[in-house]
Amino acid sequence: AQTTRIAVTPGDGIGPEVVAEAVRCLETLRAKHNLALEWTRFPWPSHAWHEEYGESWPADALAQLKAYDAILLGALGDPGPMDDTNRYLLPDSISLAPLLDMRKGFDQWVCERPARLLPGARQYLKDDRAKDIDMLVIRENSEGEYVSQGGRLRPGKPDEVATQMEVFTRRATERIIRYGFEQARKRAGERVQEGRTRAFRTLDGRSCESQVCLVTKRNALRYWGDMYTEVFEKVSHDFPDVATHHELVDAACMKFVQCPWAFDVVVASNLQGDILTDLAAVLSGGMGVAPSCNLNPTDPNLPSMFEPTHGSAPDIAGQGIADPTAMLFTTARMLDWLGRIDPKLAQAGKELFDAVAADLAEQGNQQRATSQIGDAICKRLQA
Amino acid sequence: AQTTRIAVTPGDGIGPEVVAEAVRCLETLRAKHNLALEWTRFPWPSHAWHEEYGESWPADALAQLKAYDAILLGALGDPGPMDDTNRYLLPDSISLAPLLDMRKGFDQWVCERPARLLPGARQYLKDDRAKDIDMLVIRENSEGEYVSQGGRLRPGKPDEVATQMEVFTRRATERIIRYGFEQARKRAGERVQEGRTRAFRTLDGRSCESQVCLVTKRNALRYWGDMYTEVFEKVSHDFPDVATHHELVDAACMKFVQCPWAFDVVVASNLQGDILTDLAAVLSGGMGVAPSCNLNPTDPNLPSMFEPTHGSAPDIAGQGIADPTAMLFTTARMLDWLGRIDPKLAQAGKELFDAVAADLAEQGNQQRATSQIGDAICKRLQA
Ligand SMILES: CC(C)[C@H](C(=O)O)[C@@H](O)C(=O)O
Ligand SMILES: CC(C)[C@H](C(=O)O)[C@@H](O)C(=O)O
Repeated sequence: AQTTRIAVTPGDGIGPEVVAEAVRCLETLRAKHNLALEWTRFPWPSHAWHEEYGESWPADALAQLKAYDAILLGALGDPGPMDDTNRYLLPDSISLAPLLDMRKGFDQWVCERPARLLPGARQYLKDDRAKDIDMLVIRENSEGEYVSQGGRLRPGKPDEVATQMEVFTRRATERIIRYGFEQARKRAGERVQEGRTRAFRTLDGRSCESQVCLVTKRNALRYWGDMYTEVFEKVSHDFPDVATHHELVDAACMKFVQCPWAFDVVVASNLQGDILTDLAAVLSGGMGVAPSCNLNPTDPNLPSMFEPTHGSAPDIAGQGIADPTAMLFTTARMLDWLGRIDPKLAQAGKELFDAVAADLAEQGNQQRATSQIGDAICKRLQA
Repeated sequence: AQTTRIAVTPGDGIGPEVVAEAVRCLETLRAKHNLALEWTRFPWPSHAWHEEYGESWPADALAQLKAYDAILLGALGDPGPMDDTNRYLLPDSISLAPLLDMRKGFDQWVCERPARLLPGARQYLKDDRAKDIDMLVIRENSEGEYVSQGGRLRPGKPDEVATQMEVFTRRATERIIRYGFEQARKRAGERVQEGRTRAFRTLDGRSCESQVCLVTKRNALRYWGDMYTEVFEKVSHDFPDVATHHELVDAACMKFVQCPWAFDVVVASNLQGDILTDLAAVLSGGMGVAPSCNLNPTDPNLPSMFEPTHGSAPDIAGQGIADPTAMLFTTARMLDWLGRIDPKLAQAGKELFDAVAADLAEQGNQQRATSQIGDAICKRLQA
């Protein structure tokens, strides 16, 4: 069989520490199942790299990474030490640039973050129906508010004007909405197989196993709000088995706190999705557990990228106390994704997910050393 | 003394029902304290009005309202009945237009939403430190993402492009940030007087009684993100007694759920503020209690506008069961604001706030008739 190749980019801060545990789990799974799986490590800590070479990552980083089937990223965003005026040396816009570069360069037009509150994870909401939270937030990851168009007229002057353009294409709108409906259908199928059913009502009163909720701010951001609404309605006709719903982003954020268990699949624009996926991460227990998947579902020659939602946490880096749980859930999602190349990888991903979930259920979020958590999970994988 | 004049616009759905209780409370307070206070009712239900005249509100609505010292709004946004294809007849963009028109027309450049979890209000967060939530979210209300510039190229065609421009001026940025610092200082003063102190740390390690947290998305929306950051830093020098902090909007939303008690004053752009103020409303118990104040602090000849955060709730309209609590808290804030014309009004506002809070503490959010809640609060005011 063809060998699946992963580019491992540990990145900054706690990145290398949590990535080390991910690699141990991959090794364990490879040995156990004789997987045709290989990885290469690219140690590009953005702060140190920038100090040395004046750029966040090597200029040919994307060209190097392109040869792989997936990218497993630890964390980015280490600002380095503060300067004399208490300002950090390396601004976010530089240290995090590789993230946006990869999304753009590899056309990872989907950002996907599942939210399920697993046993053992921290529960922030009072209502115990939080245990029923089972949603998937799908963020448009290629355009919209993130096109970086605009500028500053008369910077620093009293009459300065700063503009930022949002650009949305119907093509990207349609593909992300269609992807959302496909995921809803797929999730419904999986639930039915597991004997878990849900009921969502359509506008004309029928009951469906799944739902897609479109989020916009069409009452204020009318142009793309209207386009999204029209495309959503049009695509929905191809999915009569999926119920539809529309929320404004402010109301959606509110309902994520008030009744998150009422959502199934949620589709949102780049910025609104950024906000909703972070909220979804909290709903599933916080940064310590949440994976983020940047996917290109259409071009098998471009790698997708998998990262935990958390940052580089420079304050605890190097101490061996960072929780690798989110990184390991992320690795499980990556293996699941790579199942499209080799079904054995999806199976390994499921095993890893189950092991991490079992560890979480048993130990909760008590303080343990990074390697201790990795040990426990590798032991489960070997059992 | 000069008579203070209020324009009462009950609006749609449950608006007239909750406004009726607000007016009873105003009557009670006027009689009790012999207040020089008058109001006029403008019954412009947007759906019915649109049906009759083809416009959301009368064309000269703003000209009529301009003569008043404040506007007390019930609710807008009744879409009317559905049509044959299950679409609502009146889109948000029409039924809610008066809201945006008033903000713009009267240059209500501040939108202010306090979040405190009062006894009796619904607590959504598990952690009981939620009881310590005491923040004020200040939203830039005059420009930014809400300038309505942009359009649709080739609408409906596969190669359609929709654009939306965000426009930020340094002038509006500076005034909203300065307003935020002033509020922080004022709140600190009030707290110290009440013997409640808080401690926030500055970048150089000093401890302050108050904090302003600026929210942006400067790592992705760089142009205005940078301008906001620079102006924030500059203005902060005039307030060495106020600690400063910067959060990215996604992290801020997360922290609103994880540790909202850590915030004091939060300043954000129009859209990001829209989202954060809705989250703040949930933190203080939800739509049922949250006021929203659209203020023009600079021009005394233009009225500010006060509305509950909730919508017109057409599903329960006309049944006499809508909770007027948010409307009454809103009315209290309006009176507090009008204290700048007549200090007796601020005193009446405090009385109303205390009465509503006492009722909430005693009755919690159990189901009562609209008028029953109004009765109970009027009785408290008379006592
Ligand atoms: C780091 C930042 C640019 C990024 C984003 O806004 O997309 C992050 O918040 C995320 O969600 O992955
Ligand atoms: C109705 C809508 C246009 C409005 C806004 O987005 O400002 C509302 O959400 C609010 O917060 O007052």
